[in-house]
Amino acid sequence: MDFASDNAAGVAPAVLDAILGANPGFALGYGNDDLTHALERRMSTLFGRELAVFLVATGTAANSLALAHLTPPWGGVLCHTEAHIATDECGAPEFFGGGIKLIGLPGVGGKLEPAALTAAIGHHSGHRPHAVQARTLSLSQVTEAGTVYTVEEVRALAAVAHAHGLSVHMDGARFANALARLGASPAAMSWQAGIDALSFGATKGGALAAEAVVIFDAKAADAMHERRKRGGHLVSKHRFLAAQFAAFLADDNWLAWASHANRMAARLADELAARRLAPVWPVEANLVFVVLPGATDARLRAAGARYYARASQSLPDGIVIRDGDVLARLVTSFATTQAEIERFVTVAAG
Amino acid sequence: MDFASDNAAGVAPAVLDAILGANPGFALGYGNDDLTHALERRMSTLFGRELAVFLVATGTAANSLALAHLTPPWGGVLCHTEAHIATDECGAPEFFGGGIKLIGLPGVGGKLEPAALTAAIGHHSGHRPHAVQARTLSLSQVTEAGTVYTVEEVRALAAVAHAHGLSVHMDGARFANALARLGASPAAMSWQAGIDALSFGATKGGALAAEAVVIFDAKAADAMHERRKRGGHLVSKHRFLAAQFAAFLADDNWLAWASHANRMAARLADELAARRLAPVWPVEANLVFVVLPGATDARLRAAGARYYARASQSLPDGIVIRDGDVLARLVTSFATTQAEIERFVTVAAG
Amino acid sequence: MDFASDNAAGVAPAVLDAILGANPGFALGYGNDDLTHALERRMSTLFGRELAVFLVATGTAANSLALAHLTPPWGGVLCHTEAHIATDECGAPEFFGGGIKLIGLPGVGGKLEPAALTAAIGHHSGHRPHAVQARTLSLSQVTEAGTVYTVEEVRALAAVAHAHGLSVHMDGARFANALARLGASPAAMSWQAGIDALSFGATKGGALAAEAVVIFDAKAADAMHERRKRGGHLVSKHRFLAAQFAAFLADDNWLAWASHANRMAARLADELAARRLAPVWPVEANLVFVVLPGATDARLRAAGARYYARASQSLPDGIVIRDGDVLARLVTSFATTQAEIERFVTVAAG
Amino acid sequence: MDFASDNAAGVAPAVLDAILGANPGFALGYGNDDLTHALERRMSTLFGRELAVFLVATGTAANSLALAHLTPPWGGVLCHTEAHIATDECGAPEFFGGGIKLIGLPGVGGKLEPAALTAAIGHHSGHRPHAVQARTLSLSQVTEAGTVYTVEEVRALAAVAHAHGLSVHMDGARFANALARLGASPAAMSWQAGIDALSFGATKGGALAAEAVVIFDAKAADAMHERRKRGGHLVSKHRFLAAQFAAFLADDNWLAWASHANRMAARLADELAARRLAPVWPVEANLVFVVLPGATDARLRAAGARYYARASQSLPDGIVIRDGDVLARLVTSFATTQAEIERFVTVAAG
Repeated sequence: MDFASDNAAGVAPAVLDAILGANPGFALGYGNDDLTHALERRMSTLFGRELAVFLVATGTAANSLALAHLTPPWGGVLCHTEAHIATDECGAPEFFGGGIKLIGLPGVGGKLEPAALTAAIGHHSGHRPHAVQARTLSLSQVTEAGTVYTVEEVRALAAVAHAHGLSVHMDGARFANALARLGASPAAMSWQAGIDALSFGATKGGALAAEAVVIFDAKAADAMHERRKRGGHLVSKHRFLAAQFAAFLADDNWLAWASHANRMAARLADELAARRLAPVWPVEANLVFVVLPGATDARLRAAGARYYARASQSLPDGIVIRDGDVLARLVTSFATTQAEIERFVTVAAG
Repeated sequence: MDFASDNAAGVAPAVLDAILGANPGFALGYGNDDLTHALERRMSTLFGRELAVFLVATGTAANSLALAHLTPPWGGVLCHTEAHIATDECGAPEFFGGGIKLIGLPGVGGKLEPAALTAAIGHHSGHRPHAVQARTLSLSQVTEAGTVYTVEEVRALAAVAHAHGLSVHMDGARFANALARLGASPAAMSWQAGIDALSFGATKGGALAAEAVVIFDAKAADAMHERRKRGGHLVSKHRFLAAQFAAFLADDNWLAWASHANRMAARLADELAARRLAPVWPVEANLVFVVLPGATDARLRAAGARYYARASQSLPDGIVIRDGDVLARLVTSFATTQAEIERFVTVAAG
Repeated sequence: MDFASDNAAGVAPAVLDAILGANPGFALGYGNDDLTHALERRMSTLFGRELAVFLVATGTAANSLALAHLTPPWGGVLCHTEAHIATDECGAPEFFGGGIKLIGLPGVGGKLEPAALTAAIGHHSGHRPHAVQARTLSLSQVTEAGTVYTVEEVRALAAVAHAHGLSVHMDGARFANALARLGASPAAMSWQAGIDALSFGATKGGALAAEAVVIFDAKAADAMHERRKRGGHLVSKHRFLAAQFAAFLADDNWLAWASHANRMAARLADELAARRLAPVWPVEANLVFVVLPGATDARLRAAGARYYARASQSLPDGIVIRDGDVLARLVTSFATTQAEIERFVTVAAG
Repeated sequence: MDFASDNAAGVAPAVLDAILGANPGFALGYGNDDLTHALERRMSTLFGRELAVFLVATGTAANSLALAHLTPPWGGVLCHTEAHIATDECGAPEFFGGGIKLIGLPGVGGKLEPAALTAAIGHHSGHRPHAVQARTLSLSQVTEAGTVYTVEEVRALAAVAHAHGLSVHMDGARFANALARLGASPAAMSWQAGIDALSFGATKGGALAAEAVVIFDAKAADAMHERRKRGGHLVSKHRFLAAQFAAFLADDNWLAWASHANRMAARLADELAARRLAPVWPVEANLVFVVLPGATDARLRAAGARYYARASQSLPDGIVIRDGDVLARLVTSFATTQAEIERFVTVAAG
């Protein structure tokens, strides 16, 4: 009963097979190998356009490099107050960005809205050179709350950003889960909707350690080679990053695995709701947030269930977490089984 | 005939097996797993003392984090002019160190000497606060030239550094090759000789992507947790880093693989020398540097041999590289075969 | 009718005299001169203890150097949402701090309260190494709203901070105005109340360009010499900084000038209040914030009055700024005259 | 007998007068005042073209901001090994540049030569993304050795730099002394010769604390407003910086003062040479370097002479500094008197 994180799962067998398959023989390091070149072409095909792609081993690296690419050191990055980049990366964007400022905006269910965005841009524009200027919008897709922006919502937010001269980044650690949810294409959800740079995650979705920074204006991406290298993020035996990503994308594996995770979350949410433990936010991907009475929480943990308690300022009106209650974050993955869910729900029901 | 780099080799089968073996089931991410904890204990045992160990995916990360840990932003890092940290990491130590200065010292065969070190420390001390102060010594073991510091040499250099208040870092991307060469213990070559922080590499030696920052004063290492995270270097599915390193160390694999690489290099050097292509520096580990006449170089490349041409300011007296000649760097690895060497030598002999 | 800022005033004659007086002859640069040494002793006497003092030319420099001194790059600085360091220094603390994070807390009238501080520290502690850790509290004295913390309030907030391991910084750009208001001693308002580092401003109070970073734990301050130099903030003809500060402090000039500014602000506020333009926050120093109807604002500007319109999220309950109205910030200084105030009030009254 | 530095002198009376003259009344801070606007126009006229100018209080700030403007964080700055930016600014360029690398080139008498520059650019180009790329050339005019580049020499070096895509910075802390020496115009010595950004110093020449970053491509300079502010280098009572610079430039004061300093240095050198204390490098500006026998040095210091002993790797062939001898740096300024020189020479002669 492990719902701690999608990175608590292991590696999908197809990805492991790809690593094994990439092993025989020699290959130049640092991305100068055939697998990497093929993966670059594959990414272009996948997104339907020329682009630049830079593989790294962690999501924090992908986000930080992308944000530093889009934002000058005196720029501000607008994001949700509870976005991962703002709360869980220990200041990595600030470090890579040379002291950029992350500016948190509120929003129920982890989602930003155009009106609030417009106001925030107004608040962080002008008064030069005293005030940090809003320069980048970062959207988490899937959000920290497990909700998903529709293509239209992304497009509307990106339009506001671009109209004011901001660039747009998407933290797609769970990009696959969002696409699986919506049936949208990678292109529709990214550059066609106004995304300038995408952190495209594979690790949470089944890879060992593989994330991609995708920059859609390939011509502007040249210096990212240096940025990645001096960040220590150019992996030497690079073919193994490419192999992971290739297996992730092959045969629509990534979407199938994400669909499974989403289905497991939906099932979990439904079963819990049927036991009067309704999710606090709509369950649109592979995260379920539910308020557990203290006794339930204790019973689950005693039974070996693993998950994190969270705090949030983005709860819907009317949701109150009473003393002793716990806001539990339950994350499913490609590896989550129906049996685990049954067991969890059974214990939760008491 | 691939002698481009030891990272052009794949992954040692035992390491791949360990990755497969670590896969079943769930484990908390970010180093909170049993394999990581076991590896930490294993490292302590290996070095015979309490220490703090931080796994990362690249050597650049290990070096940069270690140097930033030891050096304040206004400090200088003394290293060989041709050290990897100075020439091949695109300013990563400067970036992680908040603008530290790398100060290159000359030395034949990539090795520093106590007298030159003492003079350099004198040159970069005092005149505060105008001058950057020498604060850290970084030694590459194996050096860029393929030579190896003896334990006594390391001890003498570290003694000079410590006597002047400097910390000492060792870039041990090929630490295994050095130990295999000398038969020295990890402890003797590191903290007992005065090393404060070690970049302990496994990738070049047979891992997929696994390096360790080893800090011998464990009490001083606490903030490295944040430093690594905000550098984007805390791998989420961390058990797979630990598994690689465990397999690397198990059964003295690392020393056996390094010994093989060293033997292959020695063989290659001997065979070339017998054909009047003597190495320019003593071949003490897994790198052979040899001056190839242009025609030889062309013949080798036409036959598919892969290696890099290098320039060096550290050549021994009397070695001159004539126009058209090439200083070839030939690197062997755990995966290098006798057959490749025979073929290379045969083609080289013409 | 210039109420734009206290830095719109010129230099107090006594300060100019001191600059002239310091001019004859030669003196070593960079602080190695007699005037600087005397000023250092004077500061120790003034605060009644050993301390380290570093003069710089701008308040942004003083704040940024002090915050970087107290806070590791992965640390968070808690401050009021509308603190100058958070809104008006273009990310200077983030730059000098290597990517620290400023965390804004709400508070009516620009003042923080212990309960909110305690909660914020709780929110920004733990979850290592993913979350930035609260490491420093920064208080603005006088606040951006023109209010003043009492010694007891500072002590209470500092006590909370210290109890949780945070350091405490005071942005004292208007330190003199606060002391003049309260009649408190420099010691009582700073280190005795728990302040670890003080940005002690003289520029707004009558100097040309002179600010001091005062670090009360002198032993910990050594590296500030390098920090200041590499920030470009070690002025070469340093005696002129010292001379300014000496004249500022001589004969209690600083307190007299601040008292004058405070009195002018109180007068201005009283006169405006008598005309139904009551200040929105208590006028406790040299800033008056008042909501001006659009017509009044237009009339004043037409008459040549100079001041800035501000926005604030820290208004007291019940204060609403209607469309067309302006929240005017009126700043007085040592140079403000009674005549200017009369004229302003007369025009405002219509 | 103070020859320690040109910044050991006080402030030229005309500059002090200008400060006094700027004092009456109020003026908006941060450069939004009439004196600053007039100074900006004056600079354009002086250099005969549109440009952007940013005043700051220190030379370190001017150099660091200019270098950070021209150089990406992964870029290298080529400069003389003994350039002030490399040896005396405590890593400020590295800090402001986000970890750029300063790459020192040798050259007798502090001067770089085109052939060595071409070779260095070659050595620091390519091998991307592993090697830092040469991106900026920085020339010190006057050099640290007191020599002066001719316009033709600057043009030749800048041509090499531009041909390889590098920008060119000039550290003109003693720009006036160079122009006074050569009779060249500001335009001829800067943008017409290929300089992209100039640190134009007034402090050493007679100001209190005033330096200008001059960026000749004004359109590219916009972000310097933020860069200066977040460096803490936007002085609030900015009119006093502008007033200093205006007085410096008025009536060709700057050139007259520099000519005086140069003449004093020439006189000092001649007189010493006549006593067999010939300067080690040509005395072309206001610095004289001479090897003093130990006894002479002791006698001078006993008589109250003040100057610094220096070390240099750039001595001409044949100059040897024997044990006990001292390489003395003697700096003259606008304030140096003939009498001081006579006295120094008399004591030196013994």
